[in-house]
Amino acid sequence: MKESFIKELTAIVGPEHTLTDRESLVCYGYDSTPELENRPGAVVLPASEEDICRILTLCHNAGVPVTARGSGTNLSGGSLGDAHSIVIQTSRLNRIIEIDEENLTATVEPGVVTSAVHRAVEAKGLFYPPDPGSMNISTMGGNVAENSGGLRGLKYGVTADYVMGLHTVLPDGSLLTTGGKAVKDVAGYNLNQLLVSSEGTLGIFSEITVKLIPKPQAKKTMLVHFPELEQAALAVSHIIAARVIPATLEFMDRVTIKCIEEYARVGLPLDVDAVLLIEVDGHPAVVEEEAAAVRQVCERHRCSSFQTAATADEALKLATARRVALSSLARMKPTTILEDATVPRSCIAPMVKLIQETARKYNLTIGTFGHAGDGNLHPTCLTDERDKDEIARAHKAFEEIFDAAIAMGGTITGEHGVGIAKKKYLPRLVGESGIRVMRGIKQAFDPAGILNPGKVF
Amino acid sequence: MKESFIKELTAIVGPEHTLTDRESLVCYGYDSTPELENRPGAVVLPASEEDICRILTLCHNAGVPVTARGSGTNLSGGSLGDAHSIVIQTSRLNRIIEIDEENLTATVEPGVVTSAVHRAVEAKGLFYPPDPGSMNISTMGGNVAENSGGLRGLKYGVTADYVMGLHTVLPDGSLLTTGGKAVKDVAGYNLNQLLVSSEGTLGIFSEITVKLIPKPQAKKTMLVHFPELEQAALAVSHIIAARVIPATLEFMDRVTIKCIEEYARVGLPLDVDAVLLIEVDGHPAVVEEEAAAVRQVCERHRCSSFQTAATADEALKLATARRVALSSLARMKPTTILEDATVPRSCIAPMVKLIQETARKYNLTIGTFGHAGDGNLHPTCLTDERDKDEIARAHKAFEEIFDAAIAMGGTITGEHGVGIAKKKYLPRLVGESGIRVMRGIKQAFDPAGILNPGKVF
Repeated sequence: MKESFIKELTAIVGPEHTLTDRESLVCYGYDSTPELENRPGAVVLPASEEDICRILTLCHNAGVPVTARGSGTNLSGGSLGDAHSIVIQTSRLNRIIEIDEENLTATVEPGVVTSAVHRAVEAKGLFYPPDPGSMNISTMGGNVAENSGGLRGLKYGVTADYVMGLHTVLPDGSLLTTGGKAVKDVAGYNLNQLLVSSEGTLGIFSEITVKLIPKPQAKKTMLVHFPELEQAALAVSHIIAARVIPATLEFMDRVTIKCIEEYARVGLPLDVDAVLLIEVDGHPAVVEEEAAAVRQVCERHRCSSFQTAATADEALKLATARRVALSSLARMKPTTILEDATVPRSCIAPMVKLIQETARKYNLTIGTFGHAGDGNLHPTCLTDERDKDEIARAHKAFEEIFDAAIAMGGTITGEHGVGIAKKKYLPRLVGESGIRVMRGIKQAFDPAGILNPGKVF
Repeated sequence: MKESFIKELTAIVGPEHTLTDRESLVCYGYDSTPELENRPGAVVLPASEEDICRILTLCHNAGVPVTARGSGTNLSGGSLGDAHSIVIQTSRLNRIIEIDEENLTATVEPGVVTSAVHRAVEAKGLFYPPDPGSMNISTMGGNVAENSGGLRGLKYGVTADYVMGLHTVLPDGSLLTTGGKAVKDVAGYNLNQLLVSSEGTLGIFSEITVKLIPKPQAKKTMLVHFPELEQAALAVSHIIAARVIPATLEFMDRVTIKCIEEYARVGLPLDVDAVLLIEVDGHPAVVEEEAAAVRQVCERHRCSSFQTAATADEALKLATARRVALSSLARMKPTTILEDATVPRSCIAPMVKLIQETARKYNLTIGTFGHAGDGNLHPTCLTDERDKDEIARAHKAFEEIFDAAIAMGGTITGEHGVGIAKKKYLPRLVGESGIRVMRGIKQAFDPAGILNPGKVF
């Protein structure tokens, strides 16, 4: 980084918000993706939309690449730059600008933490459904850039389904505003939805308006044990076929159950193949009926235990098993490779089986849990990145798992993004035409190629 | 059109599906947009995805522009070509390929009529919510290209919210497949959502997979009269503020009411300022409670009459008033200019007032009806395109109405598209950056510029 460039950055955000010391750069040199590390040349913390515009104008003119970063919970390397680039960190842009109860919208800055939005809107009887696993630290800007999912995706959809309006700073420093509080808008191409999940490669968000819905009045939480994996998967399909769309329909396999029980001792049995966590919500009468329908389906599929939470505390306890799944797995080995191969719901059983067989074939420990209701599984490989041989086998295994997901009509990533980690697999999914069109879109937004270079494709 | 080119077209689809006679070209020379007429050079009717690929390859090589057309219900001139171009008409591609009850999806060809999809999925207890006014003739391909809305948009969203997968033939004849039956997919840019509402300028759909949901068990239909416009608009806002999201929340103003009553004699009073048609649906218990909440809000806002349908027949009768609104208005004068200025829900009252004042200012008859719940109004000018002076005043009036919609944080088109009719207004809404980016996207998909040229921008 040239000294004169750093000086100009400092002139925009002040010396205390321009980080170039080694300790800071080390901290920003990794995100939540295993096996990746790359320190940026500098880190800046803007305090306003105008700051972002000025920083991008400066970088554009100087030809310095830029990566936007929220809390660094990214799982595909999307928030990493390199020594020739700077990172824009959004934590100072943390205001909830407005909750509009008449139009049912919330407008926030990109650095607001997701669960802070949940708390603020729920205090007014409203609901912002997207709840990624990292919601207590992840930011709204990151959620929009990655189109984050979560446990409530089956019934309520993902981040994209709630984004109504965006302020986006384009790579040349100009401001693009798309959408807004009008719930219908077909004026020109849908830039809003193109920007959602663009992984920081097309623009940097400076303001986000999301849709809110009324908060569901009631909820019922159920935890169900299945001795046979096949039966658990069939239960998932048949709950939906019974015209019940649970808010949450989560799956944990035998490896995951064992790790959870060793870590959290929540009372899971060690002799079952699968556990489902199911939540139905809405009007109390609907909740009663749907819970009964769920129980009937699970019993038909030979569940060995069906627990229903009687109180909110009990519900929290039942949900704990699923909420601690990743940390329970992660503590077993130094390196955790958390993937998100996704298939149509009807292919859950063959996919879980294929993951288990692939783990055996390559002599790996892979626990699988995830959002069974929407076919979004998290096969999680417990390994050690210093063990080159095992890491090589893990990559081979995941290559086979991704190819199988594509063959089943699924995708290589349901909610974690392509970033650096999955670039290699994208052409297999979207084909030559898809890559060509995506490169053209990148060119339309960022002809100089300074935004998050090297990501996605 | 060169004879050799027509010969090659004929070789693909056969002589009976290659139309070049004057009578046919006259028929394809207009759609539902007033004041526009332009005959294509030829019309072809492909029978398969492969046919479309071959036709586009041929046109691409010959440099002949192409416009795709479903049933020609387009309201912004989007389905019109000119003498140097051909029209691809999709009516032979009319198969419902599959209804997948396990994954809750329907896969259809682009020429399937929207209401045929409704009937097919409802027979299985499922529901495809988008219901544009033209649903009995409009096609799924057209609905996706325009992101059609409808009367159920408030609660259930619009076409975009249901599109999961697309087969799109690109301008060079290559096939692009995006999305599919996996409900989550963040692999690369969201081309699916970019193609939705691209108005035939980026590609031609050859297969469409949409999401289905369980059919609501019950429904309650209410028709409410308001002596004061302001109070009707407040009732709309306060129903939502009471955390009730009706499936339908439709508005008709005094001019519209008068035309409906003269035409259909459904028993509407002529001394009220506004009528709301409200439908709540879902579980019977929810429907009861929501209907009661709606009634309470309407009475608080001094409605003069509140009718609730006791039977399905009565519900149909109450809904008739709204369903015949456009035809009632259209019969008054030779030319009907139906617009779709859209504002945030909280701006309904000022917008309706502004439309009425603008009509008075320019001495025009404008009836306003539409989807009040989502701020999507249909100011409808009754005029005669042979009356050049009145037409000029109508255009001035709509220019002011669009500018006001933009100023209120709304948009120039909520569901009809930009096409040719609203090109002039798009830069005011999306700005210079927006137009630049959209042109870059067009370039990425269609560097030769042969798909629906002259549309959108």
